[in-house]
Amino acid sequence: MNSFGKLFKVSVYGESHGNSVGVIIDGVPSGIKIEEDDFTIDLLRRKAGAIGTTTRFEEDVPYLNSGVFNNFSTGSPLMINFLNKNTISKDYTIFKEIPRPSHADFVSEVKYNGFQDYRGGGHFSGRVTVGIVAAGVIAKKITNYKYKTEIINLGGETNKSRFKEILSNLRDEDDSLGGIVEIRVNNLPVGLGEPYFDSVESYISHLLFSVGGVKGVEFGLGFKGVELKGSQFNDMIIDKNGTTKTNNNGGINGGITNGNELVIRVMIKPTPSILKKQETFNFKTNKMDVLNIEGRHDNAIIIRGQVVLEAMVAIALADLTLINNAYKK
Amino acid sequence: MNSFGKLFKVSVYGESHGNSVGVIIDGVPSGIKIEEDDFTIDLLRRKAGAIGTTTRFEEDVPYLNSGVFNNFSTGSPLMINFLNKNTISKDYTIFKEIPRPSHADFVSEVKYNGFQDYRGGGHFSGRVTVGIVAAGVIAKKITNYKYKTEIINLGGETNKSRFKEILSNLRDEDDSLGGIVEIRVNNLPVGLGEPYFDSVESYISHLLFSVGGVKGVEFGLGFKGVELKGSQFNDMIIDKNGTTKTNNNGGINGGITNGNELVIRVMIKPTPSILKKQETFNFKTNKMDVLNIEGRHDNAIIIRGQVVLEAMVAIALADLTLINNAYKK
Amino acid sequence: MNSFGKLFKVSVYGESHGNSVGVIIDGVPSGIKIEEDDFTIDLLRRKAGAIGTTTRFEEDVPYLNSGVFNNFSTGSPLMINFLNKNTISKDYTIFKEIPRPSHADFVSEVKYNGFQDYRGGGHFSGRVTVGIVAAGVIAKKITNYKYKTEIINLGGETNKSRFKEILSNLRDEDDSLGGIVEIRVNNLPVGLGEPYFDSVESYISHLLFSVGGVKGVEFGLGFKGVELKGSQFNDMIIDKNGTTKTNNNGGINGGITNGNELVIRVMIKPTPSILKKQETFNFKTNKMDVLNIEGRHDNAIIIRGQVVLEAMVAIALADLTLINNAYKK
Amino acid sequence: MNSFGKLFKVSVYGESHGNSVGVIIDGVPSGIKIEEDDFTIDLLRRKAGAIGTTTRFEEDVPYLNSGVFNNFSTGSPLMINFLNKNTISKDYTIFKEIPRPSHADFVSEVKYNGFQDYRGGGHFSGRVTVGIVAAGVIAKKITNYKYKTEIINLGGETNKSRFKEILSNLRDEDDSLGGIVEIRVNNLPVGLGEPYFDSVESYISHLLFSVGGVKGVEFGLGFKGVELKGSQFNDMIIDKNGTTKTNNNGGINGGITNGNELVIRVMIKPTPSILKKQETFNFKTNKMDVLNIEGRHDNAIIIRGQVVLEAMVAIALADLTLINNAYKK
Repeated sequence: MNSFGKLFKVSVYGESHGNSVGVIIDGVPSGIKIEEDDFTIDLLRRKAGAIGTTTRFEEDVPYLNSGVFNNFSTGSPLMINFLNKNTISKDYTIFKEIPRPSHADFVSEVKYNGFQDYRGGGHFSGRVTVGIVAAGVIAKKITNYKYKTEIINLGGETNKSRFKEILSNLRDEDDSLGGIVEIRVNNLPVGLGEPYFDSVESYISHLLFSVGGVKGVEFGLGFKGVELKGSQFNDMIIDKNGTTKTNNNGGINGGITNGNELVIRVMIKPTPSILKKQETFNFKTNKMDVLNIEGRHDNAIIIRGQVVLEAMVAIALADLTLINNAYKK
Repeated sequence: MNSFGKLFKVSVYGESHGNSVGVIIDGVPSGIKIEEDDFTIDLLRRKAGAIGTTTRFEEDVPYLNSGVFNNFSTGSPLMINFLNKNTISKDYTIFKEIPRPSHADFVSEVKYNGFQDYRGGGHFSGRVTVGIVAAGVIAKKITNYKYKTEIINLGGETNKSRFKEILSNLRDEDDSLGGIVEIRVNNLPVGLGEPYFDSVESYISHLLFSVGGVKGVEFGLGFKGVELKGSQFNDMIIDKNGTTKTNNNGGINGGITNGNELVIRVMIKPTPSILKKQETFNFKTNKMDVLNIEGRHDNAIIIRGQVVLEAMVAIALADLTLINNAYKK
Repeated sequence: MNSFGKLFKVSVYGESHGNSVGVIIDGVPSGIKIEEDDFTIDLLRRKAGAIGTTTRFEEDVPYLNSGVFNNFSTGSPLMINFLNKNTISKDYTIFKEIPRPSHADFVSEVKYNGFQDYRGGGHFSGRVTVGIVAAGVIAKKITNYKYKTEIINLGGETNKSRFKEILSNLRDEDDSLGGIVEIRVNNLPVGLGEPYFDSVESYISHLLFSVGGVKGVEFGLGFKGVELKGSQFNDMIIDKNGTTKTNNNGGINGGITNGNELVIRVMIKPTPSILKKQETFNFKTNKMDVLNIEGRHDNAIIIRGQVVLEAMVAIALADLTLINNAYKK
Repeated sequence: MNSFGKLFKVSVYGESHGNSVGVIIDGVPSGIKIEEDDFTIDLLRRKAGAIGTTTRFEEDVPYLNSGVFNNFSTGSPLMINFLNKNTISKDYTIFKEIPRPSHADFVSEVKYNGFQDYRGGGHFSGRVTVGIVAAGVIAKKITNYKYKTEIINLGGETNKSRFKEILSNLRDEDDSLGGIVEIRVNNLPVGLGEPYFDSVESYISHLLFSVGGVKGVEFGLGFKGVELKGSQFNDMIIDKNGTTKTNNNGGINGGITNGNELVIRVMIKPTPSILKKQETFNFKTNKMDVLNIEGRHDNAIIIRGQVVLEAMVAIALADLTLINNAYKK
């Protein structure tokens, strides 16, 4: 469903080529200072324009329609929307006939019996994530956690000084790349996360995997931890605050934050919409065909996607924080 | 919280050393044939006794207390419980003073202000997963999907013929190992998964990460997919059913099943409770100390954990199937 | 919270004097024909202008921002909003000092620590119900139930021919009245409602009591049924469809629709905002004071409220219908 | 569904003639003192034996299977169950052929396609409420509210000194009666209740209407308030705590507690199972027939039902209290 959260609840709406996209954020405590400027940095991080990103450039002005009065949250839901101005009209029906490989075209055609808004990916478009970023900004304001987010792997390359060149070559090849984003969160209390089903990992992964293109999520050492024995993997506690010498568990034990740095890595697959020609099935002719995608697309959605993933983590932690508060006197 | 699911809802209770553990399974359609024998195979897969597993041996007889009448589901909730018989009394307060590294001891002490049932890990014990396996059996019965689950990596080793030897050595070393489980599901329809937040990956990862020790989840190619370009990663559709030539997306596009094989990999960390001595913090003396864990523990919880992970996937898919049904006439 | 529903989920936002109010409607099956005209009749029924209603007249044009494409629902959430144009600026801070009796002024001041948007009642304003009416229209379209709604008691008077005169006198007295609305629903299947907690009465009353001013809800004979013995109250079944001779249970047995007419009565209290002077407490002076309310208010909110209550019933039944569908093959 | 609550979550299971009924109570903060004796008084209030109640006498010993350790809540879910010992075997299939009027027999036959456990009403039996009473006891312990519950109307009679005689006559007539229960709660803070959909009235009515036989719920003056004008109905605030001179709103404004006494009235219909012969439809012969109900039944379920209704109110208030806590620092 298009809502998530028990106490800090985010509901999204909108399509790529509708008149607006946006979000209702419910469960924001009253008295939080909120100004339009608060959104600027994170919205800029998501914006098009850099190498590897689309040329569809939206202004992304956040309209705060409710829930804020005299620059403070009121306790009522915030509705924040963004107008879609820069949509180019063209014939998108081609993707109903020849669904883009690795894209939602085929599954949405079947699931919605052909009634989906297929223009620009409709509700499956990355455009919807602009509201997520806005919700993430609010989530960060109601907690006091420190986020550090970066791409640690781009198309297999881990040397960051080479990223610019890689992205530049990519455009020439009409191809795309994926990568790995690492998110580190500090200043967390001990105790977030609710057994049995709402572990910190459960909550965060639920939200991260709702972002289009995410295909892997790991915490701490993650998959690499398989190489270690228990005596090597276990994080020795070294003081009464629970500080550990290593952090192979990524700040979480038994699904609950242990006060150490939260370490998350997220794999985003290569953007499926590429200008390079692809062979695939034509549902109209019932034969194999060649798909020629035009339009404006990101070669590496991961560039703009980082802040969306960070926002998702922030939303998860805001909700878990409120839930944890509830049980404390 | 200790419940998960919108229409197929699973609620767990119980502690390692209480008198029983169990599960309420709500949302089972009426008229499903259910007999006690149905649970035998999966409960056996979770059972202790094999190399690498604990010597605490529970009978694991499932008591069906409600929701089944004349061997058919009634439409009312099933309560299934399991008695804890084989608990050994000993002094567990040592873990309040010297919490086991990488274990929930420290975080539960803080979160629950010392009131947690710390005997044998309490509610954090793997013992609770026996109810999950039972719920998984029911989940599989209300759908028609085919599961294939196996360990593809044990402590870094991928050659299965060497697993037995590795486990045997492990016991001698008083140490433990983790590994990677791969779950493949076939016979799925196109269309499971609900945007924006309840993608198939979101739902499945939420449940998988609620299992103690899981530190990574990936779908299809997962993290390895970072090496490929879009033109290589994209799965070419080859017929009108949506069959794809490759399956790098692991059967999911846009968060929705595409009818191809669902491919999931799960990393389980090495069991934290090892007999080998460990240096760590003593909260009573406020100094570093040496922890000497006794008792019966698994050297590789992954052996018994496979079926628990499979059950979690089945629970996720059962709920998503019912939700998808709701919107079809 | 500001969302309700498991599969047909309605989320509201907005304040009386913000720039817009609206609703996200999630869980609308794809392929439902939806046009702006569909909203006209129900929005008109809620509109100001008739005797007993406010002179604040809003155009109430519904903007469909998402979820509808080529006049059919897409399966993605509908966001429908309404602009607030006709707000009169004045000083509302008086209600922070002298909260209106029987109104939300005092409780919202305490609950939100004074940060609430108090202008025109803010989020507690009846203005928010315009989105509910829109959601009700959609709810009715995805089911096939027949609604008949009327005021059966206005300020103690049950003779409808006298209502106009009563309302006219009321304005002269600067006072207000409540009443009882009766909602009858036909064409319902047997089987809606989910034990144990989601009985039809539970669901419907939950939504009805979320409307400001509702103080009583009853089904079938309701409170009057206390006069009858079991042998008189019991509804004799007279055919194989479950038709009953009497309908004292109001179409519901064991919390589940029985296929007979659903009969609901709702008590709405007199509108608290009256022009007549009232003695009450002044929180600034800490003394009793006289409150003199100005502005535009309804003398009998029940007139415009009927369609809101009907919408709430429709929303409840739409969700229960989808849930019931889910468990049928 | 068979669960209710966001943070204080109650899940029920069980049938009248199964081996046990019970409840999982999730979201109990750790450190609450809980002993088996705590349940004695409320379970006694629900017990059979008094005039007007059934002769089926169950011991109702509460088994605390989890969540309590050393007499304190642990923070993990409580599972409390009760054995069904005193079930009399007989042929209940008669109610599949001739469903009892006003009972769940017919609707459950249709909804569950004949697979329901029909013995003694199965999951629809009042037997399930024993777990609700246990959950209510816990709910009261985590809050500090004062409850006063009484029958104010029995079969139309409001003079309590006549109740005993009425019940006695009823048994002779093989008939049944309903009545009205009034629940008053004191010591409440200002601020419980969450707009828009989770008003105090919404939450409480949702739970009350899930009890079999409840057909009306009102707050404060309720339906009688229809006789008053706004100037008469409005509750004048008389001090800075928000104390009001009258309490026509029953302690709630805008869906939020205002600190005054909470006043709730609940109508319970006459018990449908009566020994008196009734004419009704026979689904086997497809003709009208005479139903002759035997067995042990309450003539006035309201006697034992009072404490169940009180428990439901307590459950609602416990959840709303935890939610309200969450948003306070």
